[in-house]
Amino acid sequence: MADDKNFALSCPTPIANYEQILLAHGGGGKLMRQLLESVVLPALDNVHLQSRHDASVFVVGNQKLAFTTDSYVVSPLFFVGGDIGTLAINGTVNDLAMAGARPLYLSLGLILEEGLPVETLSRIMDSIKKTAAEADVQIITGDTKVVDRGKGDGIFINTAGIGVVEHSLDIVPGSVRPGDAIILSGDIGRHGIAIMAQRAGLQFETTIESDCAPLHTAVQKLLAGGIDVHCLRDLTRGGLASALTEVAQQARLGMHIKETAIAVCEPVRSACELLGLDPLYVANEGRFVAFVPENDAERALAILKSEPVSEMSTFIGTTTVDDAGLVLMTGTIGSTRIVDMLSGEQLPRIC
Amino acid sequence: MADDKNFALSCPTPIANYEQILLAHGGGGKLMRQLLESVVLPALDNVHLQSRHDASVFVVGNQKLAFTTDSYVVSPLFFVGGDIGTLAINGTVNDLAMAGARPLYLSLGLILEEGLPVETLSRIMDSIKKTAAEADVQIITGDTKVVDRGKGDGIFINTAGIGVVEHSLDIVPGSVRPGDAIILSGDIGRHGIAIMAQRAGLQFETTIESDCAPLHTAVQKLLAGGIDVHCLRDLTRGGLASALTEVAQQARLGMHIKETAIAVCEPVRSACELLGLDPLYVANEGRFVAFVPENDAERALAILKSEPVSEMSTFIGTTTVDDAGLVLMTGTIGSTRIVDMLSGEQLPRIC
Repeated sequence: MADDKNFALSCPTPIANYEQILLAHGGGGKLMRQLLESVVLPALDNVHLQSRHDASVFVVGNQKLAFTTDSYVVSPLFFVGGDIGTLAINGTVNDLAMAGARPLYLSLGLILEEGLPVETLSRIMDSIKKTAAEADVQIITGDTKVVDRGKGDGIFINTAGIGVVEHSLDIVPGSVRPGDAIILSGDIGRHGIAIMAQRAGLQFETTIESDCAPLHTAVQKLLAGGIDVHCLRDLTRGGLASALTEVAQQARLGMHIKETAIAVCEPVRSACELLGLDPLYVANEGRFVAFVPENDAERALAILKSEPVSEMSTFIGTTTVDDAGLVLMTGTIGSTRIVDMLSGEQLPRIC
Repeated sequence: MADDKNFALSCPTPIANYEQILLAHGGGGKLMRQLLESVVLPALDNVHLQSRHDASVFVVGNQKLAFTTDSYVVSPLFFVGGDIGTLAINGTVNDLAMAGARPLYLSLGLILEEGLPVETLSRIMDSIKKTAAEADVQIITGDTKVVDRGKGDGIFINTAGIGVVEHSLDIVPGSVRPGDAIILSGDIGRHGIAIMAQRAGLQFETTIESDCAPLHTAVQKLLAGGIDVHCLRDLTRGGLASALTEVAQQARLGMHIKETAIAVCEPVRSACELLGLDPLYVANEGRFVAFVPENDAERALAILKSEPVSEMSTFIGTTTVDDAGLVLMTGTIGSTRIVDMLSGEQLPRIC
């Protein structure tokens, strides 16, 4: 997951003008960034947070490790293609993967609302077991809290994850270089639309399944293939647009991308049209972008295409010295627009 | 914090008879144990959970590390002697300390309710900053989620922690031996009564302050002093009674303790009488028990007394081969009673 793992921030933004927390403060966009910068970050500032990435890398003895956390508050708890348990495992596995770490151990913190059917908890625990086994991680510590009826929403889950970094690359936005190829690992928008459909009881012609999946195997293959990976970022809250914008700002580089290279499957496209959503901002849970040097680009693409989770990988653009901090997208008829970070809240409680 | 870090379980208990989650499922007592055993543990079983301790210890390369997590849902958010931020740091630091680990890094997961005053979040972040600095830990990764109004309760916090284990002891219930001295690090019941007083708007003659404090320095001193520490357990939900009972059951040993050796300060004693609470079951956030071999006992006590956080340490009893799994307490007039684990819920949302 996401954008605020390391409380990723870069350009100065004005102090928060809001006196109360809004849903949009959790949306992965501008307002969240403002909150983090004005309230959360000042209390935490340390060198580890400066990498501005999904997981923090630290060294103990001679061992390089990665550490990350995410809370999951998705509503509804169950959706086509997964549930809160699937998300809680894959989301944290993916944050470790985005640092190029091999996920090892997870923690599991459950916040249960009084009145939650035990049967619901059982189903979620089954998902957790299955998903952790698939991702080859072990849950080695946990905690259970119960809050009174009306003070929670069934179940919230936090997972933190530890992974081992077995390479010498520094996979962070700051490593991105001008001319890097930007690879997108698949079509976008499935997770957000799957949740939205479930929530609104919408029936589309085709059932849209969340893309929720573990990404570490694809990343491990890139590393094993000797690709000089500069940066990785999974697309979660705020979608492709927010992920690219964040990296552009943190790397102080521009990005030129092509709309025609970005795959959106027909059912997601139709649903977005119907709902007035821009697929660039819709959340994903099994997609990422990779920044690799031009020389390695073709080989990196071939490796990603050989993995089922990233078999639809495409080049979507390149990084540039010009337009630093901006993502420019050339559309189907050749016009170019600036892709901005998500403003406000598109779909609350998407993960 | 506590009792279910490693989903600590030992004796078989009957399958959960409840169809819905009750507040008591989060109380640190029998019902929580039943829920963990019947629903949570079966999905997670692995060798790391068998240590049944506050933190899990694992090895990467040649490095021994400890990992733990806790969510904090305390109500009210602010109380005499601390707030949810203080708890979130010290609680996780203490779980690492109970494995004899030196705390290094923490994660911070915030679940905010729409409408939370930003001012409240700022105050909590200030506490987090101050408490982390005092405990000498760095928060290196985090996450922020927002849930809609009425689906949370202001703020819930999860912290996970990583520590380094720099000794060769196996500090777990299974290492406790018959004849071990049991040391209690101070008077009990302050945290629970401080919360209760705040919640009920009770005025006692003396203000009772939570004992919330980091315990790792005291533990590090025991280890540096060469004490052969067998087990450590901090007293949180379920109080001293639940901590001792858990260790007795997990170690398959008895414990004989003396009521007169257990300090309860006068204001806590009065408040417990007034409220009909047994101090043995009242939560603490800065107290622990240490199990050490008889030969090391006097030295261990002297070391603990030299640290402010544990200066009131006393011997409260010894472990025995007899009465395995039971904690027997001799009272002021010489009668003996069995100290059982907490049944039901004494004070919900105490941490």
